[in-house]
Amino acid sequence: MSVYTPVSEAELAAWLGNYSVGTLAAIEPIKSGIENTNYFVTTSQGRYVLTLFERLPAAELPFYLDLMAHLARHGIPCPAPIADLQDRYLQHLNGKPAALVTRLPGRSLENPGERECGELGALLARLHLAGRSFPGYLENPRGPKWWRFAAKEVSPFLDSRQKDLLEKELHFQSEQRFPDLARGPVHADLFRDNTLFEKGRISGVIDFYFAGVDCLLYDVAVCANDWCLAEKGAALDAARARALLAGYQGVRPFTPLEQSAWPTMLRAAALRFWLSRLHDFHLPRPGMLVHAHDPEHFRRILEDRVRARPVWLA
Amino acid sequence: MSVYTPVSEAELAAWLGNYSVGTLAAIEPIKSGIENTNYFVTTSQGRYVLTLFERLPAAELPFYLDLMAHLARHGIPCPAPIADLQDRYLQHLNGKPAALVTRLPGRSLENPGERECGELGALLARLHLAGRSFPGYLENPRGPKWWRFAAKEVSPFLDSRQKDLLEKELHFQSEQRFPDLARGPVHADLFRDNTLFEKGRISGVIDFYFAGVDCLLYDVAVCANDWCLAEKGAALDAARARALLAGYQGVRPFTPLEQSAWPTMLRAAALRFWLSRLHDFHLPRPGMLVHAHDPEHFRRILEDRVRARPVWLA
Repeated sequence: MSVYTPVSEAELAAWLGNYSVGTLAAIEPIKSGIENTNYFVTTSQGRYVLTLFERLPAAELPFYLDLMAHLARHGIPCPAPIADLQDRYLQHLNGKPAALVTRLPGRSLENPGERECGELGALLARLHLAGRSFPGYLENPRGPKWWRFAAKEVSPFLDSRQKDLLEKELHFQSEQRFPDLARGPVHADLFRDNTLFEKGRISGVIDFYFAGVDCLLYDVAVCANDWCLAEKGAALDAARARALLAGYQGVRPFTPLEQSAWPTMLRAAALRFWLSRLHDFHLPRPGMLVHAHDPEHFRRILEDRVRARPVWLA
Repeated sequence: MSVYTPVSEAELAAWLGNYSVGTLAAIEPIKSGIENTNYFVTTSQGRYVLTLFERLPAAELPFYLDLMAHLARHGIPCPAPIADLQDRYLQHLNGKPAALVTRLPGRSLENPGERECGELGALLARLHLAGRSFPGYLENPRGPKWWRFAAKEVSPFLDSRQKDLLEKELHFQSEQRFPDLARGPVHADLFRDNTLFEKGRISGVIDFYFAGVDCLLYDVAVCANDWCLAEKGAALDAARARALLAGYQGVRPFTPLEQSAWPTMLRAAALRFWLSRLHDFHLPRPGMLVHAHDPEHFRRILEDRVRARPVWLA
């Protein structure tokens, strides 16, 4: 459950008077999701998602909404924010910052195969190319600065083996610098459950509220660590990982520098999610209504990426 | 037939490299339409319409494309221009200005009923409200200035009765001034064939290439003269006309001034299309590949609107 702020039909019907989307037909709370309150909204015009922002810093919201609007008008199937009659994407509802975005069709896949991983790679590369002309800037809010903050917070809860892994990885990452890697807006959280498929094609990439500017390759690594896991364990499945990389490369070829940075990026992406899951697990925010994911999953992935020779294109 | 500029698959596939819409799957010429060359384009991402602008003044194109983009992001189901990798809506292809826009689902209706006329009214009012925050300006290119130009051109081809009607109407309209009527961007050509329905709802309003800034009420009159004609003859069908007006008024109530201007607007809208059809008929542009519509249809409508007491809300 993640409906923190109730919205009644009457409240929503009145609020929709600020928009050109017709009259309210139905409202339905969305129970998944952690950070925000979300509702499916159906009007006489179409299907939308209403998001009430519960925790995100207000100063960051225009970056997320403007980025989605930018990508949508470039043909990327992401939620398109709806502008209100004053031409603003960001409104308020029941005391919270709020936005209305288009609802995309399709369903997420639990077990994507090589074909779907290839589709994802191509879409991610298109998203990165479209993002290049986006003028907004927000440093990846879950980047190295945040790692160090989170590591300090969760450290007291770790056993010595975990603490050792964390400290070594933070040290390893702090020595890596990739000033010449291509950078731009990245989704940074494009897990399977944030990607919708319809008729075998990607019909939606959703939930841009961890987006920021970072190395584009980092986005690929985040996807690989979720989409391309072997059936058991934490290793990458070579066939699906290669399909992801080949799909990406078909649209935006990797540079030699990106190839050499790949093992480090896989580790960075594993570290980021290990840390956030540790943090959610040991230091849940007040009012957090969901059970935190098991942090061990990403510890195992990080250990694998440190140890194994990572998959690259054949 | 209105494919003036051929585009090969190879040319289009290369050109789509400027966009983030995936790879070309199919191209199909669109045979209806008069002003531009249009193709249906299907890519690995979605369905689009490619338009090559054959005659429209280049300076006007940004108004049309920016207006569509503005309305689309307000939730109006109109074609959304796709921005290219340089973040521009307007490109060139085979020597013509060109744009790629989303293709909307649905089909136009030949015989809309009261319900559909009500839907249209509501949508038109939403479009007008959403257009209020649009900063672009283009005077309606088929407004009073153009009437006088076109009247001079077609006058030699008219018989004395037609000439008399035209001169009297131009004189009548020149004495009407509505400085206090609400103005804004209007579609100005929202005939049945420019409106798509799917499952009983309007899924698309298309072809904004006669749009401009004018009295909002003029847009309603253009619709009434096409959507609400009695089964035979040129009179308005009272039930459908009232449904159109009531649908509109449910979103944006008419002012008393608009009510009093309604008969004049119906005449202005009839005059505009009588003139353009006369002009297309008697002075077809070189290379014009379609048979012109019969101008008499709108002469009869104009005569009816001059004579009859026009339908208003009951």
